[in-house]
Amino acid sequence: MEFDLVRARADTPGVAHVVHLNNAGASLTPRVVTEAMTRHLELESRIGAYEAAERAQDSIDHAHEAIATLINAKRQEIAILDSATRAWGMAVAGIPFRAGDRILASPVEYGSNHILLVHLAERLGVSLEFLPLDANGLVDVAELENRLDERVKLIAMAHVPMHDGLVNPVAEVGALARGSGALFIVDACQSAGHLPVDVRRIGCDLLVGSGRKFLRGPRGTGFLYVRQAVASRLTPAVLGLDGVSWHSGTYHLAPGAPRFETWEVDAAARIGLGVAVDYALQWGVERTWRRVRHLAAGLRERLAAVPGVRVEDRGVERCGNVAVTFRDLDPFDVRAELLRRGINTWVCLDNAACHDMQLRGLSRLLRVSVHYYNTEEEVERLCSALEALTSGRAAGRTAGVFA
Amino acid sequence: MEFDLVRARADTPGVAHVVHLNNAGASLTPRVVTEAMTRHLELESRIGAYEAAERAQDSIDHAHEAIATLINAKRQEIAILDSATRAWGMAVAGIPFRAGDRILASPVEYGSNHILLVHLAERLGVSLEFLPLDANGLVDVAELENRLDERVKLIAMAHVPMHDGLVNPVAEVGALARGSGALFIVDACQSAGHLPVDVRRIGCDLLVGSGRKFLRGPRGTGFLYVRQAVASRLTPAVLGLDGVSWHSGTYHLAPGAPRFETWEVDAAARIGLGVAVDYALQWGVERTWRRVRHLAAGLRERLAAVPGVRVEDRGVERCGNVAVTFRDLDPFDVRAELLRRGINTWVCLDNAACHDMQLRGLSRLLRVSVHYYNTEEEVERLCSALEALTSGRAAGRTAGVFA
Repeated sequence: MEFDLVRARADTPGVAHVVHLNNAGASLTPRVVTEAMTRHLELESRIGAYEAAERAQDSIDHAHEAIATLINAKRQEIAILDSATRAWGMAVAGIPFRAGDRILASPVEYGSNHILLVHLAERLGVSLEFLPLDANGLVDVAELENRLDERVKLIAMAHVPMHDGLVNPVAEVGALARGSGALFIVDACQSAGHLPVDVRRIGCDLLVGSGRKFLRGPRGTGFLYVRQAVASRLTPAVLGLDGVSWHSGTYHLAPGAPRFETWEVDAAARIGLGVAVDYALQWGVERTWRRVRHLAAGLRERLAAVPGVRVEDRGVERCGNVAVTFRDLDPFDVRAELLRRGINTWVCLDNAACHDMQLRGLSRLLRVSVHYYNTEEEVERLCSALEALTSGRAAGRTAGVFA
Repeated sequence: MEFDLVRARADTPGVAHVVHLNNAGASLTPRVVTEAMTRHLELESRIGAYEAAERAQDSIDHAHEAIATLINAKRQEIAILDSATRAWGMAVAGIPFRAGDRILASPVEYGSNHILLVHLAERLGVSLEFLPLDANGLVDVAELENRLDERVKLIAMAHVPMHDGLVNPVAEVGALARGSGALFIVDACQSAGHLPVDVRRIGCDLLVGSGRKFLRGPRGTGFLYVRQAVASRLTPAVLGLDGVSWHSGTYHLAPGAPRFETWEVDAAARIGLGVAVDYALQWGVERTWRRVRHLAAGLRERLAAVPGVRVEDRGVERCGNVAVTFRDLDPFDVRAELLRRGINTWVCLDNAACHDMQLRGLSRLLRVSVHYYNTEEEVERLCSALEALTSGRAAGRTAGVFA
């Protein structure tokens, strides 16, 4: 069955205005998501926010169910928070580390995760070790196995890093982790909605995702999966009504992931997230993933032919995130010139994806990230613009940022 | 100068649809707030969320400035988070408690705060003591002074509780706290935008507020004030880019309140919050507070004349939150009947405002909360409806929830 690109684009108002190749930052929302959110905000303003939430309770509650379906989890294994960083941090800060414990992390963890790991290690006397990468830039699973012992309390791994096209072998790691007693957390920010993410197949204990990226949902939304069997070992730093049962001055933490939630909910964003995940499920992530790989492969091939452009991606199976550096140009300048031409990309800095980029001597790179609603023509438009820029044929060369 | 009620109501679409007396839950948003949010969501869907944030950066950044102005703080003393519960919890969980420390708390703390205090006390070997109330239901300041010693690490107090009209003497407590070395946190969820809140006059170290309540802002927004001089003593449980400066594997926490923030921002909500606070500042909280007191005083007087209704409020200076119980009716049933008549109120449960309500043997009460855009006619409509309900003249008596 052919991919219904016409429908995908008709559902996406933004494609008429921009060439959006910043899906790893935040994808263009489908119309149904924006409409659901604005409709709820208007209902709130008309009848009151608590009263609107009562009327829309099913839609608000649905997001948990939709995410559980997406990642093959149970509803009680999902908490929704205001960002994936918050979700990742609350989960990891909730682990009962003891002095002498070890943490094994990939060197491609997102900067905020990295910072928290450094912080916890310093504070709690835990040893933080970054795993080596193999020749393909993937976490070296054999070395991970060598290092595993009963002192390893946590293994942290980005499924897809923010600054590279590689896809880490999380299921292989999961198999090792399950035998070891270590908790295994997967950062699926860049993979949820992008490629199939199945927590049972991965075998992780914890997993976080972001609403605004490849899931095409609202900003201010992230989710946390907590495997049922491990929830009782985690103590959230912040508790609140909804995360506990509570009476007469004593409390019990909720049995599952909801222990990480508090009472207040951004109802419009929550509804938007549920709609976005449903929308992703309607397309089917297996199907959109095939299209993303096809587009990204074409993009990499075409970029390789542009003089002065270097594709930095590693990995075996590569995803829709494409990392680019330039022989003679600063990625910031390139991004600004592209933005002026209506082409959205992003610059990754070594402080966000610090360890790996610093190890490789990369201070910044241009990230071009495709989603299924992008077209070959858009890819060509980007590449032509890059050709013009790298060859000095850019209109802005003398008058713009290149002056 | 007379209060321009016509303008206040013309700015508020909801008043045409409901009698909104649930302002302590979430106030009706002014049109400018909803419009700013939906406009930004539409911009996001048109050009991309990161790209929209760049264009709207000033509006996004403005919320911190507006809140600082509102509470007489500096911009660097403000962090914005996804709820006041999160803000309160992150601040309190960030205090370096040691075994043997003491916490003095009012018995009218919000349930989520109470739970976290119990939790920290159990976990860290800290003693948690609830302060007695005086004959007016206010925290007994003399007794607080008696109990203060160098072991008291934290004093926690709701400015206005969620379930009562009383206003706690926070400035008197602040004066004692400043001399003692204890940190003083004020929960201003119910007071921000309702009555004047000035952190210098209060003399608190920490203060939290909610966007959606009397500030008339969006759901999913809360703020944390951290006095500049104490920020360095607090370590957030979750760190992220934006809350730290970070390079080459080492990090430094941001000097002020922003250490509690992470990178991701719900841009639409952030913009809405800034617009809401500006809107409050345009009216002037001193001025709207006078009107709220006038309306609430009339409401209490009128309610006192309704047979079978009991006003439970305590306090000396009373605010717009009015607590009601019924001789023969369940507050849940009353709320449902009122809702059916287009009148919004709320039921407070002892699990949310647990300690104080339990001490008084109140399991639930009806909260009626007025804001400046309410009218005397709306107050009369509520009271007439309650008269009908308590006298059994309610239409629903035989067929509805009263059956």
